[in-house]
Amino acid sequence: MPNSTISQRLEQVRRWMQELGIRRFVVPTADPHDSEYMPDHWLCREWLTGFTGSAGVAVVTATEALLYTDSRYWLQAAAQLEGTPFRLVREDRPPHEPDELWYNPLCLPDPFDQWWTDRPALPLSQAWRMPDDVAGQTAADKLRRLTGFLRAEGREALLVSDLSEVAWLLNLRGDDIAYNPFLLAFLMVRTGGRHTLFIHPQQIPDPVADYLGGLGVELAPYEDAPCFLRADRPAAEGAQPWAGPSPVAGWRAVKNPVEQDGFRRAHLQDGVAMVRFLRWLDEADKSALTELDIDRRLTDLRAESPDFVSLSFPTIAAYGPHGAIVHYEATPATASRLAPSGLLLLDSGAHYRTGTTDITRTLSLGTLGEEERRVYTLVLKAHLQLQTCRFPEGTTGLQLDMAVRLPLWLEGLDFGHGTGHGVGHLLGVHEGPHQIRKQRRDCTLQPFRAGFTVTDEPGVYLEGRFGVRTENVLLAVPTGRQSVLGDPMLRFEPLTLCPYDLRPVVPSLLTPDEIQALNDYHATVRRTLLPHLADEADRQWLLKATEAMAAR
Amino acid sequence: MPNSTISQRLEQVRRWMQELGIRRFVVPTADPHDSEYMPDHWLCREWLTGFTGSAGVAVVTATEALLYTDSRYWLQAAAQLEGTPFRLVREDRPPHEPDELWYNPLCLPDPFDQWWTDRPALPLSQAWRMPDDVAGQTAADKLRRLTGFLRAEGREALLVSDLSEVAWLLNLRGDDIAYNPFLLAFLMVRTGGRHTLFIHPQQIPDPVADYLGGLGVELAPYEDAPCFLRADRPAAEGAQPWAGPSPVAGWRAVKNPVEQDGFRRAHLQDGVAMVRFLRWLDEADKSALTELDIDRRLTDLRAESPDFVSLSFPTIAAYGPHGAIVHYEATPATASRLAPSGLLLLDSGAHYRTGTTDITRTLSLGTLGEEERRVYTLVLKAHLQLQTCRFPEGTTGLQLDMAVRLPLWLEGLDFGHGTGHGVGHLLGVHEGPHQIRKQRRDCTLQPFRAGFTVTDEPGVYLEGRFGVRTENVLLAVPTGRQSVLGDPMLRFEPLTLCPYDLRPVVPSLLTPDEIQALNDYHATVRRTLLPHLADEADRQWLLKATEAMAAR
Repeated sequence: MPNSTISQRLEQVRRWMQELGIRRFVVPTADPHDSEYMPDHWLCREWLTGFTGSAGVAVVTATEALLYTDSRYWLQAAAQLEGTPFRLVREDRPPHEPDELWYNPLCLPDPFDQWWTDRPALPLSQAWRMPDDVAGQTAADKLRRLTGFLRAEGREALLVSDLSEVAWLLNLRGDDIAYNPFLLAFLMVRTGGRHTLFIHPQQIPDPVADYLGGLGVELAPYEDAPCFLRADRPAAEGAQPWAGPSPVAGWRAVKNPVEQDGFRRAHLQDGVAMVRFLRWLDEADKSALTELDIDRRLTDLRAESPDFVSLSFPTIAAYGPHGAIVHYEATPATASRLAPSGLLLLDSGAHYRTGTTDITRTLSLGTLGEEERRVYTLVLKAHLQLQTCRFPEGTTGLQLDMAVRLPLWLEGLDFGHGTGHGVGHLLGVHEGPHQIRKQRRDCTLQPFRAGFTVTDEPGVYLEGRFGVRTENVLLAVPTGRQSVLGDPMLRFEPLTLCPYDLRPVVPSLLTPDEIQALNDYHATVRRTLLPHLADEADRQWLLKATEAMAAR
Repeated sequence: MPNSTISQRLEQVRRWMQELGIRRFVVPTADPHDSEYMPDHWLCREWLTGFTGSAGVAVVTATEALLYTDSRYWLQAAAQLEGTPFRLVREDRPPHEPDELWYNPLCLPDPFDQWWTDRPALPLSQAWRMPDDVAGQTAADKLRRLTGFLRAEGREALLVSDLSEVAWLLNLRGDDIAYNPFLLAFLMVRTGGRHTLFIHPQQIPDPVADYLGGLGVELAPYEDAPCFLRADRPAAEGAQPWAGPSPVAGWRAVKNPVEQDGFRRAHLQDGVAMVRFLRWLDEADKSALTELDIDRRLTDLRAESPDFVSLSFPTIAAYGPHGAIVHYEATPATASRLAPSGLLLLDSGAHYRTGTTDITRTLSLGTLGEEERRVYTLVLKAHLQLQTCRFPEGTTGLQLDMAVRLPLWLEGLDFGHGTGHGVGHLLGVHEGPHQIRKQRRDCTLQPFRAGFTVTDEPGVYLEGRFGVRTENVLLAVPTGRQSVLGDPMLRFEPLTLCPYDLRPVVPSLLTPDEIQALNDYHATVRRTLLPHLADEADRQWLLKATEAMAAR
């Protein structure tokens, strides 16, 4: 029944609920690994409701069918639910009620298997090793650190379920999740030294199996992971897994010197692709292009990079009013045709063999209004203030967030999304445990350490008019000095190497120090990229794009 | 035995411990009201150890006598404990141990009564009413709000023990605590409408007793407050007091329009006294003055203000290297003689009938070094960035703190104390629940509201050389506009009216916007104070001190 309607699907679920005496069935957006991106296999809420957003919870009773989702998705959900029996509830999630059953992807058998007849199979990509001279630390060392930690905590074992942590610990990568080089697996780490990787065995080529064997890691079927609650198995295995939060995220966040150099290499290749793209765009007939052409051309140029692996997230190429839709993704049906005026917001990134990138540039396509120029300049000012700040080790993202908010708030400007997220080393482009944002959360109270990567991406979005965002990936590095209080001070090294578009800048809105910071960054971009541009026209473009601005 | 030595006092305590079988006796700095400043009666830890700092814990066992205190006081404590049996432990407080007794001022009889034969009596100042047209809200309204709150929480009563909350709720003031116009009292508020003020009855003049009667407040002896654990009384009264944190601090923090106008009136009088003082200092022969003369002269001038009540804290007049000692207070033994060079840090404030002030100016006495000028200018820049910022209602002190840190951190400068504290309305000069500081605490996670007062007092202290601090009291007020996200935006109105010393400023370290902000502030100060200066020489001084700086 591949083409069943939402009504038919709902009917099936209700029959099953009635048979089992379930009063209220709740379907969250969830996979067994608590992932941000998940394989299609677990898009059960999407299959049931037809709503494709990345966050939302469906609730089914005998008489009601509801979809809860947050404000980012209200417009989209309202459109996608139209004509279905589901009704949108404009709240993040439903209240918990007695006598309800929550769909849990860890409970096998999975009831969706019987309803969703063309349900996608679990992915089965091949595992591959990240070489030690790219990882900068052997998996043996990482496992030793973790078993040492568990021993100190008096625990025998830890079941690592986060796919990025599994990949990082074993220096293994795969392609099971779109835009995320992960393998679908659980890793049981035991202080006794015998570890188990729960994974579909056909994903492990023999050399990788040998490598894992050398680490003391044996293989077991994915569905045998002890976290699955299975009807055919009474209880989990004996060893008591560690119950606290995993320490791995905090270790992974501090990039070692080899990873740092890999990031620089990846950003160099990304910068070359961006410059080639920007020159092409400058010379192109805008009226002949749509947003999808932008995406395609940039992806093609990135794919020519020697170390290119894949995109790290779907490109956002949003022209004019589309730029004000924070989660905009062009489709053939919606893609705007460009014109020689207004702003194009371009947020994109890629995985390379030695690191991951994430860059946003907002580009002038020609004539601009005064408000576009003013907002563009103030967002650039905010971005620069974070990029050039210095701070004592241990400062949190909640504090650093103010570097971008202060200049925006002065002008009544603001934005609802976060200011920055960690970036993985050929891992997730969104990586914890830290974030920079204005809300008080665990992630914004994490102390910053040297070796953290973080994006710097303030924006301003004026609905129906335009959007501006400017983003670099930064690396926290020691200044080598202490404050007068004796605290070691950190600064940010911008990893991203790509000119800002200076054409929209209103110089009188920048201080001499800010203009100096722009010029310093552009001098670094020019010096670093120029030797890697083969085409003389690209070289000339870069020289012009990175010319020093005069102080006002 | 008024002149008993520390050794004799310790001996008495140990004999008592032995008789009662107490292994370890711990004496914190504590009074029954959890006050920042406390009557001499409760300075038990100071009497026992000889250490006069405002924070510290003494621990006595049969063989050991220890004093714990925080880093602010290590130098002072080491000096004051020298020659006594007490040994300094450089930690904030001792660990808790089994079988120990903590001195509790709520347990009666108080063992210190038998040892401390010349123990000061409890203060007995006269209560006086703050007129309704100064308070801006009647005590009846405040009590009604509180009983409504308790009813909504399902509670019958709340015992208010914070002296400032008692004073605010009843619109009563007194003089029981140095620098704090409080009465030593507990207030039991009952939803039934019969309230009790536990206070020494001779502190209440008849008209005040009548006024309280009209509010439904009856009087009872201070020691009858139900929080006292008394050997002659088995248990507290029946009503179940409300257990959560008091809501009163949050209400008190939002100054009503009448209080706001009172603050402006108080700061006008304070500004007049400051200008008269500054003119006098400029014309004085510095070499003929000590730090104590500064304190005396400024206090005398303030005392001439029509609404002057008292100082709001001991004046800090710290010349040269003394300026780097954050808690410096000159004594006849330590007071420096001034000279026509270097910086004088002057932190002072007063209570007036309609509000409280707190101001710090760092003043050039003549020749300055380059580092003094640079640090002075950067502290002024940091101070201005907070004073001129705008922010959405609900922003916290942890975030606002960054307005002063960002410019200082860029230069490797920093300071260990808080950036700002609330200021009471003829109440404590340090008033919660909010603070601006870099540490994550309850007080720095309070959302700012329109009507909050807060100080803006960044500093930099170079040990053995000099200190700089600049401080104004600010009032959070609506800008009347919303951000692009629809959040109501706030700004700060500087309540303090006194020129900054511009002589040490290095103009090239300030942006044109910062110079504009300085000029705007000085124009306001001039316009507001000039009509209130009787002496033509003071007027001329003010005109010169508030001349606009040229942009660099």
